[in-house]
Amino acid sequence: MPDSNSLDAHLRQRAHQVIPGGLWGHLNAANLPAGYPQFFARAEGCRLWDVDGREVIDFMCSWGPVVLGHHHPVVEDAACAQAGLGDCMNGPAPVLVELAEKLVETIPHAAWCIFSKNGTDATTACATIARAATGRRKILVARGSYHGALPWCSPSLAGVTTEDRAHLIHFDYNDPASVEAAVDQAGNDLAGIIVTAFRHDMARDLELPTPAFAQTLRTLCDATNAALILDDVRAGFRLHLGGSWETLGVRPDLAAYSKAIANGHPLAAITGAEWLREPATKVFTTGSFWCGAAPMAAALATITTLHTLDAPTHLRTMGTRLRTGLAAAAARHAIPIRQSGPPQMPLMLFDNDPDFRLGNTFCTAALDAGAYFHPRHNMFLSCAHTPRDIDRAVEAADSGFSAVARVG
Amino acid sequence: MPDSNSLDAHLRQRAHQVIPGGLWGHLNAANLPAGYPQFFARAEGCRLWDVDGREVIDFMCSWGPVVLGHHHPVVEDAACAQAGLGDCMNGPAPVLVELAEKLVETIPHAAWCIFSKNGTDATTACATIARAATGRRKILVARGSYHGALPWCSPSLAGVTTEDRAHLIHFDYNDPASVEAAVDQAGNDLAGIIVTAFRHDMARDLELPTPAFAQTLRTLCDATNAALILDDVRAGFRLHLGGSWETLGVRPDLAAYSKAIANGHPLAAITGAEWLREPATKVFTTGSFWCGAAPMAAALATITTLHTLDAPTHLRTMGTRLRTGLAAAAARHAIPIRQSGPPQMPLMLFDNDPDFRLGNTFCTAALDAGAYFHPRHNMFLSCAHTPRDIDRAVEAADSGFSAVARVG
Repeated sequence: MPDSNSLDAHLRQRAHQVIPGGLWGHLNAANLPAGYPQFFARAEGCRLWDVDGREVIDFMCSWGPVVLGHHHPVVEDAACAQAGLGDCMNGPAPVLVELAEKLVETIPHAAWCIFSKNGTDATTACATIARAATGRRKILVARGSYHGALPWCSPSLAGVTTEDRAHLIHFDYNDPASVEAAVDQAGNDLAGIIVTAFRHDMARDLELPTPAFAQTLRTLCDATNAALILDDVRAGFRLHLGGSWETLGVRPDLAAYSKAIANGHPLAAITGAEWLREPATKVFTTGSFWCGAAPMAAALATITTLHTLDAPTHLRTMGTRLRTGLAAAAARHAIPIRQSGPPQMPLMLFDNDPDFRLGNTFCTAALDAGAYFHPRHNMFLSCAHTPRDIDRAVEAADSGFSAVARVG
Repeated sequence: MPDSNSLDAHLRQRAHQVIPGGLWGHLNAANLPAGYPQFFARAEGCRLWDVDGREVIDFMCSWGPVVLGHHHPVVEDAACAQAGLGDCMNGPAPVLVELAEKLVETIPHAAWCIFSKNGTDATTACATIARAATGRRKILVARGSYHGALPWCSPSLAGVTTEDRAHLIHFDYNDPASVEAAVDQAGNDLAGIIVTAFRHDMARDLELPTPAFAQTLRTLCDATNAALILDDVRAGFRLHLGGSWETLGVRPDLAAYSKAIANGHPLAAITGAEWLREPATKVFTTGSFWCGAAPMAAALATITTLHTLDAPTHLRTMGTRLRTGLAAAAARHAIPIRQSGPPQMPLMLFDNDPDFRLGNTFCTAALDAGAYFHPRHNMFLSCAHTPRDIDRAVEAADSGFSAVARVG
């Protein structure tokens, strides 16, 4: 239950005075069930403490960035050491070159990379580079896919003009025929196709891409000399270190990374194939902090550590353990649930729950019992999750299912 | 002279393999005179060391962010302490509220603020909020002004479509009649007017806004219920802590801040008047790292320290000392120069130097003598510059003028 005397409630009141709606964007707790905290005091490994001292095992990882767990010592030491030398200077530090070489070595499609700060910086630069390279304008986008928060791609239309989206053509994820129709519609004006690593639209079951769908995108881009853009902002470095479509054998021409690339330090990256290198020099993309060296040092340490730990395997193992545990707990309470998506980024939805009343009830009770789940958005595993953490979270989930059984 | 055996040259070669053109954006040393380093090893106060060990007194401050000097202990301690608790969590830390309250208290026009990462995030959100609030589309922009690096505002047209700029109407900075004509052209579709704090277009004399120009913008926005947007990304926190137009008595409806707000830590801010609060809740603007707490702690410490030091006055005093010293040195060599802009962000150009041959000669020689100036872009003072640093930089400038005298 939300407590109006809590420090969280007090901070929310103050925040409402000086921030529209109390908070902007995806971390606004107004989008979560009642009882979820807005403000956090501390983080360590896979654990968070809210400002009222409540400790939870976290399955959102700041909606993705924290892939190794909070305060990973190798990452923090690398960032601190670089910051002690210099961070925001009149040019980059040598770590820029080491990081760029590491990315090009790690990601098979990449001949080069550019760093920025937001996932949206990266997806937007990919679209712009595709247009610059082809001299064409149309970008194909899956209906409902999230590619960032600028007027061309934002899920809200407030302040957006028709012209901001004049050159988008939509298709349906995992529907090759709809892609073919969209390519036909683009005619000789097709610059590129942008696609998320899997279908992770909010509030519906996650869908992995079918091999036929992925191959169709590659074939159509090859046939038209358009750029296939993989938006790997959300999934990157969790499913496969070489890019999330490596297991499908389909390589993009451009890819956008952010979130997990530096374990929570602010960084994004565009990677590209050789034929897009020269066009990329023509596109002016920059920001005041894009050469900041400390986040690059954090990224180099993060990617090195992800390799050392074989992170995708660990995350899959932990995610599978969570999935198995949730399924067993739900079955004990005879509550029908659906689990979808890759185990590293799972989603659990309740059957017959159109308004998410059951999901919210589950999450609120599980939170009280010590696990921070999300009722509608895919969750995220981290390398800090141990079998013991998963098992304790499943116990918390059991409390959630009990609560659902009471209201259901 | 550039040394092909230098570590800088070696790093540039490696960078060219993995980064288009060796580096993206404004920090690419290809835009600087030969001999300027691309890579930096260390920074402290107002001094930079390149990777080959050359020490310089810096007058670019990473093109603005470093307003207190590198490694300011109060800022770094605050950022480290917050990072030790938690940085990138499932929501903000309490420091968000403290920082937002501090901004609203410091900036008279601001009733609220939103934080982001890039100056371009902030300018773009301002335009989007103005459109959402008014239900109109046209944004007036001064010809040649820089407002960021997205397709709607980038100085490069590569990959940009006509539609990206369909709703911009141009006027000339400091020309009230041209603004009136642009407002007429917008008719009943005027959403807002965006304007930089002063005219700081590259490679031409800087111009302060005339009071008549600033007042005309305010009057026209009031008459049309459009939003006056001050792009204070570059000048903010150097000219006046309450916003760069406070001395003109003209207050904007929206303002964009970044660069100096956190002394080099990645942060940007949108500030807005009360009537734009509710529309701002409708615009979806977000990023993976926008609630990161460590840069907010750095910003709070930076702004507090800027107040304590009365930074604008110190920067003006140091900038005036530099300007006086450069003028005297140029006069000794009988070399005609022009100095323009606010002393805190000065520019020095040579007469009769259309291709910047003299400016480049000056800068290269001054760099060799220990001062990092820029031949075409406004420079930046920091609170770490002491009278002694300025005097040593003027000595370096004297070497620069000697070199110009030899080639002139």
